[in-house]
Amino acid sequence: MTLILGIDPGSRITGYGVVRDTGRGCEYVASGCIRTGSGELAERLDAVFAGVSQVIELYQPELMGIEQVFMARNADSALKLGQARGAAIVAGTRAGLAVSEYSATQIKSAVVGSGRAAKEQVQMMVMHLLKLTSTPQIDASDALAVALCHAHHRQTLIPHDLNGARTRGGRLRLDALPQGRFS
Amino acid sequence: MTLILGIDPGSRITGYGVVRDTGRGCEYVASGCIRTGSGELAERLDAVFAGVSQVIELYQPELMGIEQVFMARNADSALKLGQARGAAIVAGTRAGLAVSEYSATQIKSAVVGSGRAAKEQVQMMVMHLLKLTSTPQIDASDALAVALCHAHHRQTLIPHDLNGARTRGGRLRLDALPQGRFS
Repeated sequence: MTLILGIDPGSRITGYGVVRDTGRGCEYVASGCIRTGSGELAERLDAVFAGVSQVIELYQPELMGIEQVFMARNADSALKLGQARGAAIVAGTRAGLAVSEYSATQIKSAVVGSGRAAKEQVQMMVMHLLKLTSTPQIDASDALAVALCHAHHRQTLIPHDLNGARTRGGRLRLDALPQGRFS
Repeated sequence: MTLILGIDPGSRITGYGVVRDTGRGCEYVASGCIRTGSGELAERLDAVFAGVSQVIELYQPELMGIEQVFMARNADSALKLGQARGAAIVAGTRAGLAVSEYSATQIKSAVVGSGRAAKEQVQMMVMHLLKLTSTPQIDASDALAVALCHAHHRQTLIPHDLNGARTRGGRLRLDALPQGRFS
């Protein structure tokens, strides 16, 4: 049983999602958004750090995943996103968590089975895999997707498969998922 | 007497500089570089946070200044710079410091007297104002320039000038500086 934290950082809203990797699948633990308000930059970054730190203190995850950014729209938005990412990542490292980065393609592949899936498909699969009955806010849902991706990549590193379900080529075999669980 | 920390963040090297604002000028306290090595991103950002935190713990500054970035070369370098900035800024806010941002133009104006001064001119004036006998590493020197700029902007907010030296239009009157002190 490993608790995994997924983070979707942003300059205004940072999503977080916590899943429990039971070795036989993933279960939903928590998710939500850290809203950084409209104050000064330092204040907003401090809110990201404080918020992620609080989530870590509350749920005590062991691992943290974050979406890798290949190319932001422009230099200005890249700088803003980078600052929020920096604050979120050090909140993880300071709490002793190993932080892994996953590309959008890896996350989509792990959750939906296609690296080119639409945002809505990712959200639907997150709900299905974690048996959620209501739709999470989009940043929270993206954070849960990162956490699921991290669980998936951890499992592909385990040489002996525990429950017979397998992944191939970075893709989850959804037909092998009992009750929407994440193999 | 106020200790001011200046930070020049970068994805590989983060410069820091500490000056003591005596009310009658600024004195050099310390400067140096935090080298983040060539490890994973999370490790490097953690080194920035840890390094800035150590400097704060050692010198106990009350204020922190950081260079504002208007436009980075491209989205990729902006993201990298943003991440280092985010880590450095939250190291300051977590230690309870007020963090102020200054544009490159403001820093150059405060230290050299011209917003279009060359990097080498800034470094020479930093050495002159702080009576340094050896040339600091460029990132350390830039960090000292931010600290001096922060001291300068603090002083322009003080209604009664304590030592008769004045600033005009964001520019230091260098002729009013006794022994290279910062008025």
